[in-house]
Amino acid sequence: MKLLSGAIAAVDHGGSLGRASALFPHAPQPFLDLSTGINPHSYPLFDLPATALSRLPEAGRLRELAEIAANAYGAQSAAHIVAAPGTQILLPRVASLVRPGKALVLGPTYAEHARAAAIAGHAVVEVRDFDALADADLAVLVNPNNPDGRVIERDRLVGLAARLRAKGGLLVVDEAFMDVGPIEHSLAGDVGEGGIVVLRSFGKFFGLAGVRLGFALADQLTTERLEAQLGPWAVAGPALEYGIRALADAKWQGGMRQRLAADAKRLDELLSRFDIAVAGGTSLFRYLSFPDAQSLFSALGERGVLLRHFADRPQVLRVGLPGSEEDWQRLESALAAWASRREDAPREC
Amino acid sequence: MKLLSGAIAAVDHGGSLGRASALFPHAPQPFLDLSTGINPHSYPLFDLPATALSRLPEAGRLRELAEIAANAYGAQSAAHIVAAPGTQILLPRVASLVRPGKALVLGPTYAEHARAAAIAGHAVVEVRDFDALADADLAVLVNPNNPDGRVIERDRLVGLAARLRAKGGLLVVDEAFMDVGPIEHSLAGDVGEGGIVVLRSFGKFFGLAGVRLGFALADQLTTERLEAQLGPWAVAGPALEYGIRALADAKWQGGMRQRLAADAKRLDELLSRFDIAVAGGTSLFRYLSFPDAQSLFSALGERGVLLRHFADRPQVLRVGLPGSEEDWQRLESALAAWASRREDAPREC
Repeated sequence: MKLLSGAIAAVDHGGSLGRASALFPHAPQPFLDLSTGINPHSYPLFDLPATALSRLPEAGRLRELAEIAANAYGAQSAAHIVAAPGTQILLPRVASLVRPGKALVLGPTYAEHARAAAIAGHAVVEVRDFDALADADLAVLVNPNNPDGRVIERDRLVGLAARLRAKGGLLVVDEAFMDVGPIEHSLAGDVGEGGIVVLRSFGKFFGLAGVRLGFALADQLTTERLEAQLGPWAVAGPALEYGIRALADAKWQGGMRQRLAADAKRLDELLSRFDIAVAGGTSLFRYLSFPDAQSLFSALGERGVLLRHFADRPQVLRVGLPGSEEDWQRLESALAAWASRREDAPREC
Repeated sequence: MKLLSGAIAAVDHGGSLGRASALFPHAPQPFLDLSTGINPHSYPLFDLPATALSRLPEAGRLRELAEIAANAYGAQSAAHIVAAPGTQILLPRVASLVRPGKALVLGPTYAEHARAAAIAGHAVVEVRDFDALADADLAVLVNPNNPDGRVIERDRLVGLAARLRAKGGLLVVDEAFMDVGPIEHSLAGDVGEGGIVVLRSFGKFFGLAGVRLGFALADQLTTERLEAQLGPWAVAGPALEYGIRALADAKWQGGMRQRLAADAKRLDELLSRFDIAVAGGTSLFRYLSFPDAQSLFSALGERGVLLRHFADRPQVLRVGLPGSEEDWQRLESALAAWASRREDAPREC
């Protein structure tokens, strides 16, 4: 157990080319950024109507988005959906749905959950054991987990939610990567019972992290409370238009799930050729845990290939998917250079 | 005085074509929407780089936006600037900067301020007298005011802020329409003293309400608290790119101020030809207060010209600026039809 109370300082994240340049000032640019779990194959861009930028977003269009999102995510109805400018901005609002108490976060995981719970006034503890979460006022987990891909089965989650609900607590399940499954363990269809908030991210699976769109799924009273906090026009015009089109496009989604699964398999095979075993992950990122992780991070970074490392866990890395064939070649060359250097290096015995 | 405590229900606003269609189902479409104070002459649209949509917004780009905004608004430095996806989403966060107490809102004004203060737990009262604000824990006013354009002089605001600051209170000045002046009464340069939050809106003056961009200006401790609430990536890629380009474009801004002032004068002259006196406003909207306001609203609405009315003040209207010459003609025709009907109508004596 790790006490995180008061940890409201800014958190380090993947996806910043500015920080990459500071870390690896001599790396060839542009970076190949594999430090996020964002799909490199974006949903096809299209021309937005000028009014998506010039006019206030329409309430009717927002209702349409909620209908489509409910259908795409498997919520019972649009009344269970709150659209927001990214899930990130929802986190302190969601953590504030229960009075300040004991927040337990199943870790290690996405660090913003602990920060948000602390901002909301909770005493935050990171736990490693799922069963320990039953003791919380606010229990938070990511499913599948980031960065290791661990999955908690739906029936265990439903049981935990019932226990928390009975004492006025709340279970928050961040399903940021659930678009690539395992969908049978999603709680999206269970939020109507109350005591559950499910978070869904639009930008990761659709490769559109810049538009800022995310959703909270909850019972109707909770969605009304969150909507009151956001106020009108929380979702920008471009996010509305992309959300409506992409979330309704089941054909693209199905094809993309297959493509990402194949890409993840290809990445595992490539890494194994360099004796790097993949310890977990999802189709959007792979999780590595091995003693040489720090040397791999540095060697690839110097070649402009950016992985995600974690300051407090030097043996761990997360690797996103390359997009183009050129990117795959670049990753392979960088891995080969690291491997040959490793073979040349004197070993400690 | 009007007690607004607990008034956290959704508020009616201008700018919704969905509601316009419901009100005026037989009106010729598309509507000419004069129900907002949004500039009809948008900042020129440009092609966004694909990465503005696909990648997470860069922290470095956000810092750049804060520098440019500080300069454009007259804040002492970027450390006094928080960028957000619209000012709207900031309102409950700003109201929560002081412990729940007595919130006084100088009204009538933009209704979301009272709603946000109530959400933050304050007992909210609308006051009509500026001097009454000194009694508040949280004092809120809009300057220049929406919808009547009333201006409070800067030295009075500075004095009020000092009184509130001395007792741990907060003055919030919403300068949503201050881009069109009177800039000498802006508090943007005074926020470093503490106890003041100034709100600035990007979408209104630049005619880009759909991108969702707004700013809070405050002392550094307060900007850090607000940034912690927003978390990373609060501002979407398109908002970052438009904000950086448009706020740095002093030439466009200067020209637009002149154009809007001329347009506002033209609107006043047009209205006066139909015996409608303008009672106030800014260069982005005009304020009407006369007994026949409701008949004007209905007559124009039936012709597809949408003004802003206020459910609780039937004698009051707000009129935005037409954009194209065609829109001016349409407004004039609708006014003429209303005037001829008025002349034909039997008068009560």
